[in-house]
Amino acid sequence: MTVSIAHLGPSGTYAEAAALAYAQYLTRKTGEETMLCPCSSISQTLWTVAKGDANIGVVPVENSIEGSVTMTLDTLWQIGCLQIQQALILPIAHALISQAENFANIQVVYSHPQALAQCQGWLEKHLSDVPLIAKNSTTEALQSVRDETHSAAIASLRAAELYQLPVLAHPINDYPDNCTRFWVVSLQPSGSGKYTSLGFSVPANVPGALAKPLAIFADRGINLSRIESRPSKRSLGDYLFFMDLEADSHEPSVQLALAELKTFTETLKVFGSYTLLNID
Amino acid sequence: MTVSIAHLGPSGTYAEAAALAYAQYLTRKTGEETMLCPCSSISQTLWTVAKGDANIGVVPVENSIEGSVTMTLDTLWQIGCLQIQQALILPIAHALISQAENFANIQVVYSHPQALAQCQGWLEKHLSDVPLIAKNSTTEALQSVRDETHSAAIASLRAAELYQLPVLAHPINDYPDNCTRFWVVSLQPSGSGKYTSLGFSVPANVPGALAKPLAIFADRGINLSRIESRPSKRSLGDYLFFMDLEADSHEPSVQLALAELKTFTETLKVFGSYTLLNID
Repeated sequence: MTVSIAHLGPSGTYAEAAALAYAQYLTRKTGEETMLCPCSSISQTLWTVAKGDANIGVVPVENSIEGSVTMTLDTLWQIGCLQIQQALILPIAHALISQAENFANIQVVYSHPQALAQCQGWLEKHLSDVPLIAKNSTTEALQSVRDETHSAAIASLRAAELYQLPVLAHPINDYPDNCTRFWVVSLQPSGSGKYTSLGFSVPANVPGALAKPLAIFADRGINLSRIESRPSKRSLGDYLFFMDLEADSHEPSVQLALAELKTFTETLKVFGSYTLLNID
Repeated sequence: MTVSIAHLGPSGTYAEAAALAYAQYLTRKTGEETMLCPCSSISQTLWTVAKGDANIGVVPVENSIEGSVTMTLDTLWQIGCLQIQQALILPIAHALISQAENFANIQVVYSHPQALAQCQGWLEKHLSDVPLIAKNSTTEALQSVRDETHSAAIASLRAAELYQLPVLAHPINDYPDNCTRFWVVSLQPSGSGKYTSLGFSVPANVPGALAKPLAIFADRGINLSRIESRPSKRSLGDYLFFMDLEADSHEPSVQLALAELKTFTETLKVFGSYTLLNID
């Protein structure tokens, strides 16, 4: 069987690099053949897997500088049935890619909003008056640069090679320790691993509505590696919470914690337990 | 004295509408004259106030659908010395503004990324294959529409009037209960009011590092109306936390809670106590 892997496309995105790295890991581990399925958005990537049109999806969860990818959290909550199989960490290094001879000839810079934000300081210093235009992906930005000699794109070195375009500067990200965490999701039940992710809503905005769920884990010595609030979209001040635990949901103490958590939440969705894979 | 009020410009943005509403409130209350100072970004708005080039800044904090405005939280933390004087809630209703005769003639839609996101469902239904282009503000989008007959912008009715451009559809936001909360900030010490906002970092990622700070408030019956995590930008998994309390920082119980909180945090910044003003 060929395993189909959905990701944010087109060819050359960081999501594709993460999907490729996971495909290679899968082939090494199981011998299975893989096929990449580029999608037009993160939401479409997740829905493609939920509808069974791809076996696996690889989506960004958070970046070390810009924080959560809220589209991933919101869509996972909305779909509800996808389970996390694996986490991947991909180092991010941005390049300025352009056919222009030098910085002075650049009249516009295209990229994904997160990439533009991650190079904000560099852009202010070197291209201070040049307009920044947001694109749906870093490679959509490259496609514009292919046709326009006075524009530049921010994308990876790998993308510059794929599109055979010159690199004017690299790396240009403001913080050298820039990396993005991805989740590998599917309709299969998740396995076991030292990380567990979940989301929940609380019945009402009362004192301790969030303190109680947190105390449930703290009392058992279970570390929360991340907590994120997202609007429930019902009204201002009404939130969903997403948590990452450093513990396996199959451990008895975590099972007890989750059972207790259920009594304090309105809706609780456990997205699974998984291990972390570092990509060099 | 004329009070200068910095906000995200140019004329016609929702931030300008919030700044105008606050200017009117201030004039009614104190008789002082006001002057608006449009800035090119949220970060620049806050720095303009921090440097003393404007007396007051009005910045968006969170939207009921899209969630936190992370640029506001990150810049407030970075500056450190700005204090919140007032919160404002502004209802948001988006319009599709274009010189095109009908939807079929629209070839591109411009807006601020948050406005595009808030109309996602409507756009997929009515303009499914039309490319969406992000602009720095809703009114920058309108400026493009003024020159191009086959493009559309998403902005407010008020902005359409200001720029004398036709409204093709209104309201087009996916959720009717759409509003944005703004903060009014200045270098003055904040007053008192039923809301208090603060940010903190924790010394290490240990079990209960966040549970303890939350329990401090829960134990005293102090409600947290919001908690937000942001990357510290040091490394993946290292966060700052922002909290809104439903309590005045001058109350003795809150003073005690803040003193106790200080012993569990690495850096604690209290951004002030303030009241909430609803704008119709």
